[in-house]
Amino acid sequence: MTATAKLTPKGAATRARIVASGADLVLARGVGGTSLDDICTGTATSKSQLFHYFPGGKSELVGAIAAFQSERVLRAQQPFLGELDSWAAWQGWRDAVLAHYGSQRHWGCPIGALATELIGNDPERAADVARHMDHWRGYLRAGLSRMRDAGLLRADADPDTLALSVFAALHGGLLLTQTMRSLKPLEAALDGALTTLRAAAATG
Amino acid sequence: MTATAKLTPKGAATRARIVASGADLVLARGVGGTSLDDICTGTATSKSQLFHYFPGGKSELVGAIAAFQSERVLRAQQPFLGELDSWAAWQGWRDAVLAHYGSQRHWGCPIGALATELIGNDPERAADVARHMDHWRGYLRAGLSRMRDAGLLRADADPDTLALSVFAALHGGLLLTQTMRSLKPLEAALDGALTTLRAAAATG
Repeated sequence: MTATAKLTPKGAATRARIVASGADLVLARGVGGTSLDDICTGTATSKSQLFHYFPGGKSELVGAIAAFQSERVLRAQQPFLGELDSWAAWQGWRDAVLAHYGSQRHWGCPIGALATELIGNDPERAADVARHMDHWRGYLRAGLSRMRDAGLLRADADPDTLALSVFAALHGGLLLTQTMRSLKPLEAALDGALTTLRAAAATG
Repeated sequence: MTATAKLTPKGAATRARIVASGADLVLARGVGGTSLDDICTGTATSKSQLFHYFPGGKSELVGAIAAFQSERVLRAQQPFLGELDSWAAWQGWRDAVLAHYGSQRHWGCPIGALATELIGNDPERAADVARHMDHWRGYLRAGLSRMRDAGLLRADADPDTLALSVFAALHGGLLLTQTMRSLKPLEAALDGALTTLRAAAATG
């Protein structure tokens, strides 16, 4: 972060180009299947340039890729993600999630894939990814808390547990879009999750 | 499979030992993070022995590991998995899943992790894993079909879509057990999924 702040506009643009291009490579082949040489070739960058922007090497670049993918995925869910305090917003979010992942060339979720791959290999970067996921899940929980406070959910509904169940359904649905090469599991997962939320709706 | 059938009992035992030990290594470090040398060292096997049992090399071994993990994970869910045609069986299955994954040293699901890692690197093995997952999901769908036929689910309930939503919740819950290092997301995911099923219960 400090390194980024010191960059010239041109340097920042080069760094951003490396991250975006590296993100595509990692998405296609995984972290283990992508070498620094691949990234140099894919971005027309020399290795010394790469280390100029990422003194920590591959791990630091992977951290930047995780932040980039997280920001992209979250932005695609806005404005719904930030205002999940009505049933209409949840439906809008569901539609936005399906539209976003349906528009990608690649099945699955870049964040979930990084989480799975890094957990055994790079604990520090895995912790970064976990923080991005916590941040994402926090939006769901915040919306559900406001719905409970507004009387849309039962007073005994637990926003934290409900948010976990929706977030799990989302990520499992995304995993299955990969294995089944279809959006149907994501749709079923999200609709199932919304059914779970509705079951916690205040009645009368 | 043909190769396995020709093995002596001693050969079959050696092969099984390589698969089980390789499965642990792959679980801890991922396919990309595990070399054939690592597996030779971990199993006290020479490389020529390894290629005797797995002429197709690492990819064939990974296929055997996927089958081994799939068999283990499915067995841990029995007898419930094979008889998901009552609400009691679903609750028993939920408890068995939590008990199984809670007893593992490693968070997450070995099958889901293989699915994610192989998709970009080894399409043939990724297809193997997808078949194991389809087989697994088939148990859920079969139980729900029988429940609908028995009048426990509404006549318009779709066993396929419901099974997808439960299976997605399961795998997302497992992914989050990794990032959060807690069983809580899996519990929330499974309970959410059972709530979704209950919402499709026949009334009256």
